[in-house]
Amino acid sequence: MPDLELTLPDGSKKKIPAGTKAREVVEQIGARLAQAALAVKLDDAIVELERPLDKSGNFRVLTWNDLEGKQALWHTAAHVLAEAVTALYPTAQPTIGPPLDEGFYYDFDVEKPFSEDDLAKIEKRMNEIIAQNRTIVRHEVKKEEALEKFKSNPYKQELIHEFTGAGKTLSIYSQGAFYDLCRGGHVEQTGRIKALKLLKTSSAYWRADQSKASLQRIYGIAFPEKKMLDEYLTLKEEAEKNSHLLLGKEMDLFTISPLIGKGLPLWTPKGTYIRQKLEEFMREEQFKQGYLPIITPHIARVSLYETSGHYPHYKESMYAPIEIENENYILKPMNCPFHIQVYASRRRSYRDLPLRFAEFGTVYRFEKSGELTGLLRVRGFTQDDAHLFVTPDQIQAEFGNIYDLVIKVLNTFGMNRFRVRLGLRDPKSDKYIGSAESWDRAESDIEKVLIDKNVEYFKAVGEAAFYGPKTDILVKDSLNREWQLGTIQLDNNLPERFNLAYIGSDDQPHRPVMIHRAPFGSMERFTAVLIEHYKGIFPPWLAPTPVRIMPLSDPHYPYAQKIKQQLMNARIPCDIDHSNNTLSYRIREAQLERIPIMIVVGKREEDEQTVTIRLRDGTQKPGYPLAQFLAKTVSFMQNRSAKTDY
Amino acid sequence: MPDLELTLPDGSKKKIPAGTKAREVVEQIGARLAQAALAVKLDDAIVELERPLDKSGNFRVLTWNDLEGKQALWHTAAHVLAEAVTALYPTAQPTIGPPLDEGFYYDFDVEKPFSEDDLAKIEKRMNEIIAQNRTIVRHEVKKEEALEKFKSNPYKQELIHEFTGAGKTLSIYSQGAFYDLCRGGHVEQTGRIKALKLLKTSSAYWRADQSKASLQRIYGIAFPEKKMLDEYLTLKEEAEKNSHLLLGKEMDLFTISPLIGKGLPLWTPKGTYIRQKLEEFMREEQFKQGYLPIITPHIARVSLYETSGHYPHYKESMYAPIEIENENYILKPMNCPFHIQVYASRRRSYRDLPLRFAEFGTVYRFEKSGELTGLLRVRGFTQDDAHLFVTPDQIQAEFGNIYDLVIKVLNTFGMNRFRVRLGLRDPKSDKYIGSAESWDRAESDIEKVLIDKNVEYFKAVGEAAFYGPKTDILVKDSLNREWQLGTIQLDNNLPERFNLAYIGSDDQPHRPVMIHRAPFGSMERFTAVLIEHYKGIFPPWLAPTPVRIMPLSDPHYPYAQKIKQQLMNARIPCDIDHSNNTLSYRIREAQLERIPIMIVVGKREEDEQTVTIRLRDGTQKPGYPLAQFLAKTVSFMQNRSAKTDY
Repeated sequence: MPDLELTLPDGSKKKIPAGTKAREVVEQIGARLAQAALAVKLDDAIVELERPLDKSGNFRVLTWNDLEGKQALWHTAAHVLAEAVTALYPTAQPTIGPPLDEGFYYDFDVEKPFSEDDLAKIEKRMNEIIAQNRTIVRHEVKKEEALEKFKSNPYKQELIHEFTGAGKTLSIYSQGAFYDLCRGGHVEQTGRIKALKLLKTSSAYWRADQSKASLQRIYGIAFPEKKMLDEYLTLKEEAEKNSHLLLGKEMDLFTISPLIGKGLPLWTPKGTYIRQKLEEFMREEQFKQGYLPIITPHIARVSLYETSGHYPHYKESMYAPIEIENENYILKPMNCPFHIQVYASRRRSYRDLPLRFAEFGTVYRFEKSGELTGLLRVRGFTQDDAHLFVTPDQIQAEFGNIYDLVIKVLNTFGMNRFRVRLGLRDPKSDKYIGSAESWDRAESDIEKVLIDKNVEYFKAVGEAAFYGPKTDILVKDSLNREWQLGTIQLDNNLPERFNLAYIGSDDQPHRPVMIHRAPFGSMERFTAVLIEHYKGIFPPWLAPTPVRIMPLSDPHYPYAQKIKQQLMNARIPCDIDHSNNTLSYRIREAQLERIPIMIVVGKREEDEQTVTIRLRDGTQKPGYPLAQFLAKTVSFMQNRSAKTDY
Repeated sequence: MPDLELTLPDGSKKKIPAGTKAREVVEQIGARLAQAALAVKLDDAIVELERPLDKSGNFRVLTWNDLEGKQALWHTAAHVLAEAVTALYPTAQPTIGPPLDEGFYYDFDVEKPFSEDDLAKIEKRMNEIIAQNRTIVRHEVKKEEALEKFKSNPYKQELIHEFTGAGKTLSIYSQGAFYDLCRGGHVEQTGRIKALKLLKTSSAYWRADQSKASLQRIYGIAFPEKKMLDEYLTLKEEAEKNSHLLLGKEMDLFTISPLIGKGLPLWTPKGTYIRQKLEEFMREEQFKQGYLPIITPHIARVSLYETSGHYPHYKESMYAPIEIENENYILKPMNCPFHIQVYASRRRSYRDLPLRFAEFGTVYRFEKSGELTGLLRVRGFTQDDAHLFVTPDQIQAEFGNIYDLVIKVLNTFGMNRFRVRLGLRDPKSDKYIGSAESWDRAESDIEKVLIDKNVEYFKAVGEAAFYGPKTDILVKDSLNREWQLGTIQLDNNLPERFNLAYIGSDDQPHRPVMIHRAPFGSMERFTAVLIEHYKGIFPPWLAPTPVRIMPLSDPHYPYAQKIKQQLMNARIPCDIDHSNNTLSYRIREAQLERIPIMIVVGKREEDEQTVTIRLRDGTQKPGYPLAQFLAKTVSFMQNRSAKTDY
């Protein structure tokens, strides 16, 4: 048998005879790794552990720490789900069932939607299949054979015709008697699944096309260890309790109106207050760093997007044109071409650069209605956008300053657990604009900044914007979920397409480089994440009502009013609970409304010109001097403190 | 002859025999008035002085102080223009030629556009016709006769067919041999025109329809006194020199990009600075008065506008719909229905009212491309909008507070010459929604507020919004031009259409009343007016660069930098002119850039920690203590002072 050569992640080479099973290679690398292994990756293909290897290439072991490792387990769970459903409902036609970023689903053509009882029955049957610990086996079959095997299933027939030509082969995976059309990427035995849960069911269309057949989708999750499911369900329950949908409604932060439309949230007064505090924070930081605010319209002629390349490269996210006096206009999906027009409106000299144009720019991008969620997935959102026009010499310093700003922003919210992703182009895709040289230059420019700043980062091929590579910060929130927030992108292509120039010290025109950046990303999305991150309990500088004043009885109402006026003069929103309820009832109410600072005033406080401070954690500070309270509160607001140490 | 009864503006009645000429009645009223009279108004019709009166009605004398008086003169000038053109260019076909708010035009079908030389020739011929002092005579003719008279002019033919049925009559006006189809409204003799000027020529389409014939338009102006033309031309020159188009470009305040589209200005950094200062001012005032900022999207489903009545009552100003997943969405032309959705998102109690929702809301309204001008007439603009939801008891207090706010705003800019217009519905028009009772109630509610506040106002029928009556402030700027700025509107109709409610103290649902208001009106328009009002010389709080620091020589640069840092810490933008130019050259440059405050620092200033202040008017304050300069400058900015009294 000929030898194959595997290149391991550390760059070392390993020679093995062709036909060696993936599992054997992993065992040679290490016994503990073999325990944890769920599949391996050979170049771009996910390979099951029991499959014999038949080519040389880059070899990597996938465990639960890799998304692709998780997905091997979830993909198998999807097949187990399909087997259980077809066994219990013989007329059900399975269609497709992929793994997701979290869990998996499978779509079925069935007569009626699945009920909760159905899900329980299906889950029970799945557990039986898992208990049998069936081996997953890959089969290569000819197109004709596949058509014969799936002859009663028109969906699979359609897929087979699409995937392959006459006489060619495709792959089928079986687990005992059940088999499914499948590209692969599984664990080797159903028994690797130690715990699973079917989460919900919904309807879906075949190929997500409303004109095609209506299907029923079942979502599920699975784990290689029993205790992981319990942890998952606990966190999920916690997340649902603190979901921004629930809190947003309860705290009256935003609303969605059917008359206005899906995915178009309206910011109600309290939500607007939070958003404006975030914007004020960003404006201050931007002023310090020499950004120049600008304001641009929400529509532009199609020709703008043709020049930029958004049309056609970004067309699927854009809305249909509006005709005005024989010209077509489109809602803007991105602010960059507008900022470029401001740059291009004057002759620019190297002495003017860097120019940093900033805008809280509202953009409109198409999302399918099924994917819209509160403030998190919307059809219109506002970016804290900016575009820097720099000379090549300035890239490093400017990119570095932006990186520092993004980190400062995240630290302000106590988000200090994050990963840095370097998003590169996928050289095999045609969704990018610009030459290979300009991409290589931009990618190496970014990477150099990250290396020079000693930033730990990982690379992700295919995560670039269509005009340039980018750095994204993936942040873990207080519920351990990861969010893609601040983004920084380097771009040699749009300056080229718009023929931008500055006059250098040599009196000749030169091409500037653009940096796109948005530390929050989207105000909608960031606010949604913040609501969940804080579980609705905002620090005083973000809380719509940071202070509530409670006079012990009527005679102290004027003193309460005086304090309110002093707070309002310092632009600190506050209110007075002047009801006849008991103090403990009023405190409970304020806690429920998530008000961070309560102050109680009675005779003694008024006589002494003090207040009694009460915080959410139960801390009490009786007889605290009023002037000191005001000064401290102002400083908490101005310093954007997470804590309130009076 | 039967007697007619005329009702004069003071309510008194005057009986005259039918057939009395308008001039004779005016002479009976007063000799000086007869001198000034240009025409009279009998009910809705403008009547020439030499015309015999044939009906009773409301009778008013029109002079140069009335727009309709001016228009009688301009209308006659338009006829004189048509005569001159047809005499000089026998193949020219006159089409229509109305008076405007300022001057008049006439559109001609001619072989080639008019040149400057043509205009001079035409003007000369017009002056000859005026010198002949021809009498303007009205003729009633039958349709058939009119068709015969204008048989060689297809445009007039079209108008005749449109204006009247077979056998009916219409009016023709002649001045000597020349005659034109005309509804009337003229001075009685061409000699009443004492001075005229043809201003410009442009192309236009028949009936403003691009698919129809292309015409050539000539604009002109005319006056009843010679010196008025000189004054007009002086002011016009001054206005053109200070036009926001010219200043906006020179000062780099905004830009318009052909790739983005007509009527869609982009605010460049300096213009954005001014706009944000205006917004900050309004936000502060609104915070004090308990307004709650909200943020709403720029598109909504057609059904929203159907409910509000914008569709179809406002349809001509709205853009074509965008289809998204089988639903039609439209760019918002007004913020009100969005704010209503925020109101309607919760159950409201009488204790919650008044609710004052404020938004700097960007709206999109159709304007013909020929009418677009810089920031003044645009297709997208931002209103400093707010909607108050009040109980009927609260109308008076809230409307009064808003009126005071509008006046405070205008005073801040030194705009203290204004008129107050009460805009009422035109009972004959069908462009309004709601019952006569709800209109009567709203109109009398507004008028009562104005009377109680001792506001001088005048009524204008047909100036209401389609949903309710309004108060507009018409402001005279430093060039004596009048602008319609702040608006306040009362509305019983939208709450009805959206079925809005609050729970009263009686536990029953009640209908709130809405107040719409925008003190600036549109940020674009207001900024355009401000640029021209200030002739580009903004007070320090609005100037994009309020302070420039000039070190006398290199060794004093660090001291200049220290001052700059202290100003920047106080968020006062400033720069340093560190060039090698002479001081007087640098001062001249700063004057040209319209920088209000210059400070010069040299050895003595640095040693003494002082500055030498230099203002635009030449005032110099040498040896001014630095700390005091900083404190004063901060206070000018914060107090929005017009002056800089150091």
